[in-house]
Amino acid sequence: MRIALCQINPIVGDLAGNAEKILAWSRRASDENAELAVFPELCVTGYPPQDLLDRPAFLDDVEDAVEYLAAQVPEGLAVLIGAPVRNPDKTGRRLFNSALLLDGGRVAGVSHKALLPTYDVFDEFRHFEPGETRQFLPFRGRKLGLHVCEDMWNNEEIAPFHLYDANPIDELAAAGADLFVNISASPFAVGKSEERTLLIQESCREHGLPFVYVNQVGANTELIFDGDSRVHGTDGAILWHAMPFKEDFFVWDTECPSPWTGGGWEGVDVSPIAQIHDALVLGIRDYVEKTGPGVFEKGLIGLSGGIDSAVTCALAVNALGPERVVGVTMPSKYSSGGSVADSQTLADNLGIEFHNVTIKPAVDAFGEMLGPLFEGTQEGVAEENIQARARAVTLMALSNKFGYLLLTTGNKSEMAVGYATLYGDMSGGIAVLSDVFKTQVYQLADHINELANREIIPRNTITKPPSAELKPGQLDQDSLPPYDILDRILDLYIEEALGQDDIVTKTGYDEAIVAKIIRMVDRNEYKRRQAAPGLRVSDKAFGVGRRLPIVMRRTRVERTAIT
Amino acid sequence: MRIALCQINPIVGDLAGNAEKILAWSRRASDENAELAVFPELCVTGYPPQDLLDRPAFLDDVEDAVEYLAAQVPEGLAVLIGAPVRNPDKTGRRLFNSALLLDGGRVAGVSHKALLPTYDVFDEFRHFEPGETRQFLPFRGRKLGLHVCEDMWNNEEIAPFHLYDANPIDELAAAGADLFVNISASPFAVGKSEERTLLIQESCREHGLPFVYVNQVGANTELIFDGDSRVHGTDGAILWHAMPFKEDFFVWDTECPSPWTGGGWEGVDVSPIAQIHDALVLGIRDYVEKTGPGVFEKGLIGLSGGIDSAVTCALAVNALGPERVVGVTMPSKYSSGGSVADSQTLADNLGIEFHNVTIKPAVDAFGEMLGPLFEGTQEGVAEENIQARARAVTLMALSNKFGYLLLTTGNKSEMAVGYATLYGDMSGGIAVLSDVFKTQVYQLADHINELANREIIPRNTITKPPSAELKPGQLDQDSLPPYDILDRILDLYIEEALGQDDIVTKTGYDEAIVAKIIRMVDRNEYKRRQAAPGLRVSDKAFGVGRRLPIVMRRTRVERTAIT
Repeated sequence: MRIALCQINPIVGDLAGNAEKILAWSRRASDENAELAVFPELCVTGYPPQDLLDRPAFLDDVEDAVEYLAAQVPEGLAVLIGAPVRNPDKTGRRLFNSALLLDGGRVAGVSHKALLPTYDVFDEFRHFEPGETRQFLPFRGRKLGLHVCEDMWNNEEIAPFHLYDANPIDELAAAGADLFVNISASPFAVGKSEERTLLIQESCREHGLPFVYVNQVGANTELIFDGDSRVHGTDGAILWHAMPFKEDFFVWDTECPSPWTGGGWEGVDVSPIAQIHDALVLGIRDYVEKTGPGVFEKGLIGLSGGIDSAVTCALAVNALGPERVVGVTMPSKYSSGGSVADSQTLADNLGIEFHNVTIKPAVDAFGEMLGPLFEGTQEGVAEENIQARARAVTLMALSNKFGYLLLTTGNKSEMAVGYATLYGDMSGGIAVLSDVFKTQVYQLADHINELANREIIPRNTITKPPSAELKPGQLDQDSLPPYDILDRILDLYIEEALGQDDIVTKTGYDEAIVAKIIRMVDRNEYKRRQAAPGLRVSDKAFGVGRRLPIVMRRTRVERTAIT
Repeated sequence: MRIALCQINPIVGDLAGNAEKILAWSRRASDENAELAVFPELCVTGYPPQDLLDRPAFLDDVEDAVEYLAAQVPEGLAVLIGAPVRNPDKTGRRLFNSALLLDGGRVAGVSHKALLPTYDVFDEFRHFEPGETRQFLPFRGRKLGLHVCEDMWNNEEIAPFHLYDANPIDELAAAGADLFVNISASPFAVGKSEERTLLIQESCREHGLPFVYVNQVGANTELIFDGDSRVHGTDGAILWHAMPFKEDFFVWDTECPSPWTGGGWEGVDVSPIAQIHDALVLGIRDYVEKTGPGVFEKGLIGLSGGIDSAVTCALAVNALGPERVVGVTMPSKYSSGGSVADSQTLADNLGIEFHNVTIKPAVDAFGEMLGPLFEGTQEGVAEENIQARARAVTLMALSNKFGYLLLTTGNKSEMAVGYATLYGDMSGGIAVLSDVFKTQVYQLADHINELANREIIPRNTITKPPSAELKPGQLDQDSLPPYDILDRILDLYIEEALGQDDIVTKTGYDEAIVAKIIRMVDRNEYKRRQAAPGLRVSDKAFGVGRRLPIVMRRTRVERTAIT
């Protein structure tokens, strides 16, 4: 049997566009004599549809789209798609997250997702009822072990958060399936592809069955999907592996065990930093493209001469092309000479439009306006923030005037400890580096220069000590530990969810430093709540997957008080 | 049996503070010869603890707090508290949301919440596993039908989103319970108290049992809890009803059926608009107080002379007192003479500190800075937003300098259609009116004046047509339908989740207007994602309870295309 793997990039809510894309790829599958074309989870709606699923009119339209697809699929081809399906029972959540087999003009088979991720960025119990039964789907002599995304993840070693009572993989094998087919919308994080490989290989070997895995590709707001679709043989060996971060297509003949003749994943740099680069580029591009034609003409970046804005700008150029990126340097009296010069060099290296707007008039104006009220006070954070906010007003004016998408440049380390000005440098439509630690930003800079095989990020930008340049002689390291130590603490606190005592034990760092960093992270929740959506590349990014109270105190009853 | 109802206001994460509060109220219960003191759901952690529950160190501290409480409770008194409890099973989510009976120095009984709300602002399946069994809890000769919050809400008529398979109320009654005890953390919305009354009365009458209901009071970030604790008799009659929006305490003697001698709910104005007023006042006060001593000295409001900022300012005064509120008027060349005068009148009426800072210097400075780049373009939204953002920079400078909490003033109608400037008038720590439609803001203004029994909100502010005053002669109604029509459409689209066709059918409004408003709501998701947390007073507020994609298109396959 010839099975087409269709790694497509749908747009959330775009039922008409997604349906046409599914039909176009189905015709390609049919042209290549496939009998079955497999598409990703919820490909009719795009993933994640979020609370669009609460709207009856949207669900009616989904039903129309499925009916249309069933009628329009090329004759002789069957198609596996993902869509929300209404739950006919009176009790339970109102929907299932389903894989639907369209064959002969109708819905010929269905499998409801059993394991509903409800952690981190996932909210599936918000909308879906779990499927209760696991049976193979008979299809032209095969017994498809059809299941959806998380259904394959119930593994003691790898399961991301918690174990479920059910294990659909084992149940489908026990029921007699002869081929696993998983349709997914599984977002990228560093290391995720390796986890999928281990998991699928284990399933293949344990049950002696081949495995077809089709995952969504593309970025939808903050979530980036790498695709990573593949075919594994009964021994677990990878028979085909899709190109990551791009749409890809392959027809696998189940009777021809090793048909892969190049293309796809082969030859692609999949080092962690290369994956982060490719993910962020896709994240920027899809944000602009999917928002719709004519909304964002160009990307706009405020260039400080520092590493974060330089890397953000280079990523934007890799996403949109140099003719669609604008850089602006906005020096103040505290800016070093290098700030403008390094920004100019970067712009020249990238070949982008570049402007210099000094913020002195605005800073002076606010000084004049606030003079009477600030009389007798010491210069401090208020004055520093005025500079950052004067830059934001300037950039947002350009954004509003010319339809540019402003990209924010703050990295994960800064966002964690609150080294960013709300309504200042935090302003923008999408936060490109907010899930990339400072130490990784340097690696990205090197990677960008290596990719171009010349200097893009100026040498001086990479080597000078980081500074916000909001007061004379200010350096990040004056008030923070070195970034390698800071990032280690942040990784353990944010991604590993460890407490102060465990972090001190694990690292041997000074307790006072660890306590200070934790306090800074907690106290800046209010800033992050108002941050631009940030592209997610780790297992725990700030934003929708990390939900913490703003108003809170973190105290404990001391052990000594417990009798 | 004498049972103390303890309607307390805990602080999220403040395990030590909450424990001491529970002990203090327990001593009071003991002093009044109660045998059992009942506290709200998750009162040890405060509700909602959100992803603090993902942290093992936090859960260890919770266990310490529970152990401490069990040891310290006054002799002879038993205490019912709510706390997260670790799930000992290998599978399933890692916690239960539990009611714990502390008696004789130990945990003497437990009931795990069975129905876990996972919709709107609730994420309970993110952390909790449902309790499987329902049995009464024997306690000194009584059979307590103990359950937690949502467990009492599985009612076909009233259940807020979906029905569950289980009905703990019926199961507890069938098991032989002789008294229902519900501990809750059920947030306020207009109409919620009436729903609770209906639901509890139905449970009492169906099973012939009395009902003790103890709900959290207080605001935690955006969620406001009204308390609304009560005792219902076997016939459903209310025997005691707590004061809404305040901590309250009552000892009910089960042998003395009608002991209520005034106090509590009695005589309180519980009209919808009075409840909204009281909720918002509590929301502002708790945001300031719970953030901690010394963080926010005062509340700060930019006064435009319009109704929204006037009402926000009056609410802040009712929450914090006039000596802790600062108003600033920031006229531009487009401001009407009334803007400053009406703001001055308001400030005088309220007796607050008041400043006048003209934004002309900043607007001129940005004009100068952007002049070369804007050359040849038409004045428009970019220039309008510069004014709003110059005001925000001014207010945030005051906030940073003096430790003021900036309150944003945008109402729900404006936030819905995007009539607000991101990083401009949307700037601030808490959005006071973002769940209050414009038509309700006028009602609030009248209510505030009635409460004071004199003019607080100036007459002129109430009667003049709404305008952003960002260009000459601008009025809201130039580009929007009248607010009563707008609010009706928004209510149906946002709260009722109806689609365009249904709204047109239901209201008879012009299809083009409905379509335009829906498009505006959808297109401004990006602004709301970066909005300050907004105090929630309706069943569907913007913010954490409404999760929609920013990058999306809303298209459908036309019915005519479906063969």
